[in-house]
Amino acid sequence: MHSLHPVFVPQSVAVVGASSDPDRIGGRLLRFLIESGFAGAVYPVNRSGAAEIQGLPAFASVSAIPGSIDQAVIVVPEAGVEAALRDSIAKGVRCVLVLTSGFAEIGPEGRAQQDRLAAMCRAAGVRMLGPNSLGLLNVDTRYFATFSTVLYGLQPKPGTISLATQSGAFGSCAYGMATQRGLGLSKIIATGNEADIDVAECIDYLAEDPQTQVICAALESCRDGNRLRAALLKAAAAGKPVLVMKVGRTEAGAAAATTHTGALAGNDAIFDTVFAECGAWRPQSIEEMLDIAYFCTVTGRLPDDAGIGVVTGSGGIGVLMADHASEQGLTLPPLHDDGVAATRALLPFAVAANPLDMTAQVTSVPDGIPRTIEIMLSHVDCGTVIAYLAHMGLAPKRFEATRDRLAELRGQHPGKGIVLVMLSVAEANEGLEAVGIPVFADPSRAVLAVAAAARMADRRRHLWQAAPAPAAPAPADRDPLGDVATEVAAKRVLAAAGIPSLPERLCATADEAVAVAEVMGFPVVAKIASPDIQHKTEIGGVILRIEDAEGLRQAFATLLSRAADRAPRARLQGVLVTPMAGSGIETILGVHVDPTFGPMIMYGAGGTAVELYRDVAFASAPVSSGQARRLLDRVRSTALLRSWRGAPAADEAALVDAICSLSAFAMRHAEAIDSVDINPLLVRRQGVACLDAVITPRRAGEA
Amino acid sequence: MHSLHPVFVPQSVAVVGASSDPDRIGGRLLRFLIESGFAGAVYPVNRSGAAEIQGLPAFASVSAIPGSIDQAVIVVPEAGVEAALRDSIAKGVRCVLVLTSGFAEIGPEGRAQQDRLAAMCRAAGVRMLGPNSLGLLNVDTRYFATFSTVLYGLQPKPGTISLATQSGAFGSCAYGMATQRGLGLSKIIATGNEADIDVAECIDYLAEDPQTQVICAALESCRDGNRLRAALLKAAAAGKPVLVMKVGRTEAGAAAATTHTGALAGNDAIFDTVFAECGAWRPQSIEEMLDIAYFCTVTGRLPDDAGIGVVTGSGGIGVLMADHASEQGLTLPPLHDDGVAATRALLPFAVAANPLDMTAQVTSVPDGIPRTIEIMLSHVDCGTVIAYLAHMGLAPKRFEATRDRLAELRGQHPGKGIVLVMLSVAEANEGLEAVGIPVFADPSRAVLAVAAAARMADRRRHLWQAAPAPAAPAPADRDPLGDVATEVAAKRVLAAAGIPSLPERLCATADEAVAVAEVMGFPVVAKIASPDIQHKTEIGGVILRIEDAEGLRQAFATLLSRAADRAPRARLQGVLVTPMAGSGIETILGVHVDPTFGPMIMYGAGGTAVELYRDVAFASAPVSSGQARRLLDRVRSTALLRSWRGAPAADEAALVDAICSLSAFAMRHAEAIDSVDINPLLVRRQGVACLDAVITPRRAGEA
Repeated sequence: MHSLHPVFVPQSVAVVGASSDPDRIGGRLLRFLIESGFAGAVYPVNRSGAAEIQGLPAFASVSAIPGSIDQAVIVVPEAGVEAALRDSIAKGVRCVLVLTSGFAEIGPEGRAQQDRLAAMCRAAGVRMLGPNSLGLLNVDTRYFATFSTVLYGLQPKPGTISLATQSGAFGSCAYGMATQRGLGLSKIIATGNEADIDVAECIDYLAEDPQTQVICAALESCRDGNRLRAALLKAAAAGKPVLVMKVGRTEAGAAAATTHTGALAGNDAIFDTVFAECGAWRPQSIEEMLDIAYFCTVTGRLPDDAGIGVVTGSGGIGVLMADHASEQGLTLPPLHDDGVAATRALLPFAVAANPLDMTAQVTSVPDGIPRTIEIMLSHVDCGTVIAYLAHMGLAPKRFEATRDRLAELRGQHPGKGIVLVMLSVAEANEGLEAVGIPVFADPSRAVLAVAAAARMADRRRHLWQAAPAPAAPAPADRDPLGDVATEVAAKRVLAAAGIPSLPERLCATADEAVAVAEVMGFPVVAKIASPDIQHKTEIGGVILRIEDAEGLRQAFATLLSRAADRAPRARLQGVLVTPMAGSGIETILGVHVDPTFGPMIMYGAGGTAVELYRDVAFASAPVSSGQARRLLDRVRSTALLRSWRGAPAADEAALVDAICSLSAFAMRHAEAIDSVDINPLLVRRQGVACLDAVITPRRAGEA
Repeated sequence: MHSLHPVFVPQSVAVVGASSDPDRIGGRLLRFLIESGFAGAVYPVNRSGAAEIQGLPAFASVSAIPGSIDQAVIVVPEAGVEAALRDSIAKGVRCVLVLTSGFAEIGPEGRAQQDRLAAMCRAAGVRMLGPNSLGLLNVDTRYFATFSTVLYGLQPKPGTISLATQSGAFGSCAYGMATQRGLGLSKIIATGNEADIDVAECIDYLAEDPQTQVICAALESCRDGNRLRAALLKAAAAGKPVLVMKVGRTEAGAAAATTHTGALAGNDAIFDTVFAECGAWRPQSIEEMLDIAYFCTVTGRLPDDAGIGVVTGSGGIGVLMADHASEQGLTLPPLHDDGVAATRALLPFAVAANPLDMTAQVTSVPDGIPRTIEIMLSHVDCGTVIAYLAHMGLAPKRFEATRDRLAELRGQHPGKGIVLVMLSVAEANEGLEAVGIPVFADPSRAVLAVAAAARMADRRRHLWQAAPAPAAPAPADRDPLGDVATEVAAKRVLAAAGIPSLPERLCATADEAVAVAEVMGFPVVAKIASPDIQHKTEIGGVILRIEDAEGLRQAFATLLSRAADRAPRARLQGVLVTPMAGSGIETILGVHVDPTFGPMIMYGAGGTAVELYRDVAFASAPVSSGQARRLLDRVRSTALLRSWRGAPAADEAALVDAICSLSAFAMRHAEAIDSVDINPLLVRRQGVACLDAVITPRRAGEA
């Protein structure tokens, strides 16, 4: 049994801080619990010693309740929480829900108090939700442990969508929007300050929960990246779509996040990467999240592919949907010749293509709409057919025959999805949803939901594999990092790890440089060498294409004088001499050891494009060669490697090898480094060459 | 009086093809017209000679109707349209609505027939809507001239939003979605095949129409770009927001557009540019269009600036809104110190910042919410305050006091907008909308609507100015273009127009080349010269950095042999010798003479970025220097010109001059050219240099 089972499915519950006054938090919560029809035992607890609260026998403490208690819900003011917790632990509860606020979210003192509560629970083997949690709702068992006033206005409808969220306000908002549009829910939980239970663990629970088919989640931060990854992968393995919002996305948003929670928001691009690698989808808005959840819960599956067939009664909306489809990565495969012939036989005026425009003629042909949809299902290589039916759903009686034929089609084509777009009333929609056909009013939202589901399905065909023991590398693998303080040292370390550099020599005098260059062969490159100068080009510290000895002597002098001018405090080691690299494509390759998610590999466009266009992508280490190739595909400038405008192709295989080598290096040294920047990595017709590298060791105290 | 007045506001109407059977098109239209309560005279016309149809006296022809007739609505089958039109013209109608389909949309024969109808109307001075139009709705006068069955399910609510659309399906869909959410409408028109009246002219009409406050429009194509520009600018001058959707956006969408209409979809980026220059907004979806229309019609104004103040009762949603705001170009200016103090005095636990998190404490402070909103209105430099109020609108009675205080605040701060985000029932919303406060359920949609309105306001501060006579340049300005067949000739023409090149010489022999280079000074560049080779680099036709005479002789031979190999049919003129350009930033500058919108200037990143990242922007010619500077601001790589990473700044003023010179050139030669490509234009520390140019003359027959 999952360790969160007693949290979601208690048999007996003590409400500590229960009140007779439903305007007070403890009174409202008790009232919801009583009115919900929860079948378990509910015991109001109040220090006042009242014998009865809201018609139930009441107790002065949890310990005073006869029999065993699974769960204590604590809603007393902050000053009384610790005593209530001690009392609950003494009684032997398996978990506590601390809904009281005034802890880590208000500052260091509150955080210390919260840490004490967490330590008490840990020591006693008791699980804790919160503090500062809005509680939870188990719609299946009618267990409503929340004081959110949204329950006054909107009662939940049972269903298969569950939601785990840090922010209670986010939870109320999503709950309200879902319920107002009639979506069925199973479980909703707000984790608040996450002193113990976090959203990741809730996803892990919901992945096992038989009533949950679709998991929605919202994070502001994440304290254990690998736990989140594992939970997402478990949900993917269980075939359950996960729609996870990460708020605090942009700089302005992140500023709000730090004033709001005690936790720092993680790096946004890293979250994007991890969600994608673990088969989840990141909606942009609550409404988008609910649209996709609706699609998934009604169809019960993800599309087999990114192909769609579009049927409309008029071209305008077909064009609009085709626009959105291609923006969102969907394709419109052609209608096969058989399908063209069948369409012409049925509707001579129709545009027999994909999108298929039935024209107004369809209204005069018996069963014209389902017969056209059947043609698309049979004669277009697509996982989903989307049909725009204008406002037919406003007349549900007249629509019944069509609905019944569509239900038959759905049964005859179990591997394909049918989605309708039309204005309609709830009655028409319910009949369709019951047979697995979702209905959207806005054409654009329908396409977006299908596209998200199709892309999620694609992600699930390429899930990231955790390394056997990513958190704790075996001691044998922890070879010392060695000296990485200079460019020369960093390149030597990377060369040993399998990422080659060009030959180079550190020269103390101009004579030495000339002697070295004559052996290497001109033209050469000269660079200033100093552990204190990381961005050499910015001080003019690199001189390219030096053709002869005289030029090199001049360059040597120029570099020393520029360094003296522009970086007067830098310790100089001399001048690095290296051959001209020759032609190739400049890329950037790096490692970022994320405090939450561990070592991440970054690959991107070289030169100015990395900053101007953010043309980079990340992948969690370890990176397999297949994953390295997909990483390349996510960067636009990779096109430059692939016979761009007739140029010879660059050595992509060597680049993939370099990525895998860097990934292995990052795994070995994840504890010792903060980052690696190989910039540029030159990808040549044969092989790659690291032309410059910086390795930043982990600063002390940042383990 | 506007020439479309008789179209929208007829006094007397003949329905040609009227039927007693409301299942038939002509019957349904007549029924809607009768039931709508239209106060004008309605005359059913049917060849059958029936004396009465649906209770009205009927006539066998329009001519047979006594008295004058403003408008004929023609719904007879296609074969009878011409006769019906002739009859209507003979009667002296001022306009006809041809709702019958089967014209240009079905092929060349239908187009010819449509052209005949249009010619008949033109000759008679009669305006025509359609053919293949779904008709129009004037909600103010209750004139419903359509057979769309959407009227069975949804009756329009009067209001100030009007819609002009080419596609009838699009119109029905938008009408239905607007009506279902309770938006009030004024006029809706579907232009269909646009043989005469087009969407642009309808926008022009609506810009004058006193009942219309917000104009929505949808285009698949546009036949007269300057008419569209003029209409959009007129609406901007009238202070009316224009929300215009252009479908057929992407390649897949455009393919659908060509199968659908007789018209070709225009270039998407050009439409984007023209809409922005003329102060309109292009929504991505119908729902987004309606959200913005709702915001504008309720607030009655556009925001004064892009600043917003965000108030929430809990951080999570505040972070989400801040994320969206910064993605959408809104800013969250800080809360002034006075505001921080006022917030602390009111709500000690609140996060006194922007976003302002009131925390649950607000529920225990009388008028806590309006007082907090007042603090934001008074102490944040922002045009709009957005308040997230959870689900307060679900209890409209309890919300009344807050609503009344908000109404007062709205009156006290007439220059600022207030937007609420909450779950609510219609009753709560109506009370707020009546005082100018829009209400959204989804936080993301609220932010998007405010952002769109704020950006539209910004566009209206920088409207494009048409040239005195853009369509017909005075003959004196039409100096001949001259020879532009080769790179040398094109650069010479552009230099005369004010866009400088480097010195260069066309050399027939290697000896000549060496002699030229010795005068210019090495290093030099050698390029193959041929009117048949436009993309020289792709065949290896450019050799850079030639250091001496020997190198130049080799280069000469190499170029000739490569040309012989790779472009064996090209007529060779010799080799062009030019000095090395030295350092600078490569950009691309061009002209595209759009068939719809005339000469457009393109500026963008040089090198591979133009193709990889589409880092280019367009501006309609003529371009003023202010507009040229804003054009630069719309391209990311312009950052490279501006002391990028400590590099010296490039000569932006010279680039602006070059853009203005090219604009003047494009205006002078708009009739003679298709395009100009200056690639690269090198922007140096002082001045610019055109390093290569191609001018494509207009092909014969494409006037």
